[in-house]
Amino acid sequence: MKISILGGGGFLGRKIAERLAQEGVYAGRRIEGLTLFDMFEPPAPAAPFPVATLAGDVVALPEAAIPVGTDVVFHLAAVVSAQAEADYDLGRRVNLRGTDAVIDACRRLVAAGGKPPRVVFTSSVASFSATQADSLPDDTKQIPGNSYGAQKAAAELILADASRRGFLDVVSVRLPTVSVRPGRPNKAASSFFSGIIREPLLGLEAELPVPDDFAVWVCSPRRAVEWLMHAGAMDTSAMGLDRSLSPPGIRITVGEMLRAMDLVRQGSSALVRRVADPAIAAIVGTWPAEFTAERARALGFAAHEPFEDVVRAFIEDDLEATKRDRGV
Amino acid sequence: MKISILGGGGFLGRKIAERLAQEGVYAGRRIEGLTLFDMFEPPAPAAPFPVATLAGDVVALPEAAIPVGTDVVFHLAAVVSAQAEADYDLGRRVNLRGTDAVIDACRRLVAAGGKPPRVVFTSSVASFSATQADSLPDDTKQIPGNSYGAQKAAAELILADASRRGFLDVVSVRLPTVSVRPGRPNKAASSFFSGIIREPLLGLEAELPVPDDFAVWVCSPRRAVEWLMHAGAMDTSAMGLDRSLSPPGIRITVGEMLRAMDLVRQGSSALVRRVADPAIAAIVGTWPAEFTAERARALGFAAHEPFEDVVRAFIEDDLEATKRDRGV
Repeated sequence: MKISILGGGGFLGRKIAERLAQEGVYAGRRIEGLTLFDMFEPPAPAAPFPVATLAGDVVALPEAAIPVGTDVVFHLAAVVSAQAEADYDLGRRVNLRGTDAVIDACRRLVAAGGKPPRVVFTSSVASFSATQADSLPDDTKQIPGNSYGAQKAAAELILADASRRGFLDVVSVRLPTVSVRPGRPNKAASSFFSGIIREPLLGLEAELPVPDDFAVWVCSPRRAVEWLMHAGAMDTSAMGLDRSLSPPGIRITVGEMLRAMDLVRQGSSALVRRVADPAIAAIVGTWPAEFTAERARALGFAAHEPFEDVVRAFIEDDLEATKRDRGV
Repeated sequence: MKISILGGGGFLGRKIAERLAQEGVYAGRRIEGLTLFDMFEPPAPAAPFPVATLAGDVVALPEAAIPVGTDVVFHLAAVVSAQAEADYDLGRRVNLRGTDAVIDACRRLVAAGGKPPRVVFTSSVASFSATQADSLPDDTKQIPGNSYGAQKAAAELILADASRRGFLDVVSVRLPTVSVRPGRPNKAASSFFSGIIREPLLGLEAELPVPDDFAVWVCSPRRAVEWLMHAGAMDTSAMGLDRSLSPPGIRITVGEMLRAMDLVRQGSSALVRRVADPAIAAIVGTWPAEFTAERARALGFAAHEPFEDVVRAFIEDDLEATKRDRGV
């Protein structure tokens, strides 16, 4: 079993690499090689199998990024929402042309006599528009309100077609907003969904730009990693032409998120200041707060843990490293 | 009013150019210039305004194809279904990269201080999957079963996003199967939907590869031209983020098509031979046979004439020219 992670230096890519290194087996087979590709050379975890690390441009994907014999490709290389909105050309280049480059790399493997590699593609809740009241069924039409979402929805279509043609075997997972992300606050409109938990747990103040009853569709980093690894190992024969799914995240209000944090660390939410920001509220207000996620459940995607567990997992997995990185 | 037609040498492009040349005005304004762009230099109709003709590659779109001051772009340049299925790279290049090139040309006009041009994009019924029994509502998710449909659906998303960003102002029209097409039978799976009418009216035999009760969603060339011209002139302010629509074609069985032909030219259908072709039936069997088309009706897209009128219009508009071209 040979695996490649494109975007292997990112937050989720690194977590998947660490899990694979710990387990040594994947989908019931011994891992014989892992390739980590990113813009900058990603760190290699200590592993019982060879790990190659590689830096480059996804649009000019080097052949070594998806070497001959690769079984599974985690395609996480992307320009995220705020950046794709600020720089149209960059978003289109990486999110669309980059996906074409991944398809072409897989075609080369198939042309050389290999099996179509499984590709796990991270799509996003941002490819939909909705109101706070909606719970979207699986067959909802994607009408994105941002360039990132439009590029992800288009890439889903192109990857599904490449699957139908036998170039690869894709599962596109439309990740909810991931919370709690480690690191620092950033300019993403969704940054505060992690900030209101991470910052108080670091002893720092955080700003909440939306009302307490604002609902959001979230998943934990642990659950995102589980789902992506399930997508790389599952049987796709029942999927038909539609190779995308919305996994079972949780609908939660930010007020409920804060109460869950207080249950784990009493009084933490006192560090959260309400600072209404209509610009941010306008952006996140168009994202669906809930999906029925029936298809993903039927395909074996695990149900989500309660948010209290998410807070505890952040403390266990990421708090110390975040403190070190940020010097707090 | 300045207009460009990309794919201006094609069947529908030429018909739009001729209509504009005859009328001299469009959307209530005097036409001051028409540019026709195609792979090969398109014929220029005699017109009361300057007509520029231009040959080139849509992916390397010359600036003169959408000159400064262009108000409306008809973007009909495409690699069609059978060809996009046979040559993946060519389909992706023209249908996706070509659309990016159109977006970039419009951006240059806006960057130079112009208004975002109206872009009329021809999408297709082939971007959906369905059974013969379905009548698809407007919010149906596109799950294409062919590369052409996937590329068209992806281009719709990218064009809608470019509209949202103010680069252009798109209306994507998902054309039904156009019947009766002039010319010759070709390798498109849908070729016979025109062939079973055109060939008998030329006095030639035609093959029908599906049963008489096979239903199809069709529109006439006249109606397609009307719709595309309506899309170029209509008010788009009520469209929101979803810039696509399925216009009100007609659901008709091939048996009904043949009976309509016989009403116009008695006995013509005797030239149609039933030659079952399971390969063709499998492809066209995944195309929707009906749409509710409510959105398009509300946006002023005209209802379709009965198929008898379509047969008469073919005789009036295209039969003599087709005879001349084919020497029959």
